[in-house]
Amino acid sequence: MIDPMERALELAKIAGSKGEVPVGAVIVFEGQIIGEGFNTKESTQVVSHHAEMIAIERACNHLGSWRLNDCQLFVTLEPCLMCAGAIYQARIERVIIGAKDPKAGAMGSLYEIHSDQRLNHNFQVEEHKLGSECSQLLKDFFRKRRAKP
Amino acid sequence: MIDPMERALELAKIAGSKGEVPVGAVIVFEGQIIGEGFNTKESTQVVSHHAEMIAIERACNHLGSWRLNDCQLFVTLEPCLMCAGAIYQARIERVIIGAKDPKAGAMGSLYEIHSDQRLNHNFQVEEHKLGSECSQLLKDFFRKRRAKP
Repeated sequence: MIDPMERALELAKIAGSKGEVPVGAVIVFEGQIIGEGFNTKESTQVVSHHAEMIAIERACNHLGSWRLNDCQLFVTLEPCLMCAGAIYQARIERVIIGAKDPKAGAMGSLYEIHSDQRLNHNFQVEEHKLGSECSQLLKDFFRKRRAKP
Repeated sequence: MIDPMERALELAKIAGSKGEVPVGAVIVFEGQIIGEGFNTKESTQVVSHHAEMIAIERACNHLGSWRLNDCQLFVTLEPCLMCAGAIYQARIERVIIGAKDPKAGAMGSLYEIHSDQRLNHNFQVEEHKLGSECSQLLKDFFRKRRAKP
């Protein structure tokens, strides 16, 4: 199997090529990718169409279950509150993050949803070695967007 | 127009009749209902299919925009972190809540997402006079579910 973060980066690049903030996500279960997605918020004009939400919905459909126990989620950008909420409710086992998101991240930046013991599921969060590549992709995207008239 | 919380309660009852936790949500824009939904998490086995998420997606589709400025969301149960994250990102103007959710609520119970000034949108949260009816519907549902063998 391709490194799931490599695949998430490919997905992020597809998003970027469509004018979307370049974020991609992949869900792995028993060594197989069972759901993936990239940000489509601008093209669909639906606020919830983040990469992680799409990957989660597909993984649920794949397993026929809203419980994604023993699944790992690889995502190129630290999840926001919405995605973090979906992740803990799906009982995902582990989240592997590319770039951190100091403005909206909910797994270490603004909030630490993964370790809030009041919630009914906690999980591990790790940073991936491709983090700087994920981060550079986002920086390039925003620099180009700011340069547009 | 019917009181939007009355309609949300109707939707919650439909959810309950299908074995779903009875929660309903309605989005109002310029005095019209432009999106509504009820919890379908068990029937679709998709973790993100909360009433609010469905109502938000429909409202986005209705307006052709992920921005739901000047919209009000009526929901029979205090939103969770996932839904609160979607609500602030959609820039919903005001949220009107039926029952509080001490175990998972993110608008006054566990978190106060609506007033976190680090986020790019803050909004008002109000409690509705039908709160006790919304709460009773949930209590009855869980009592019946516990009584099942």
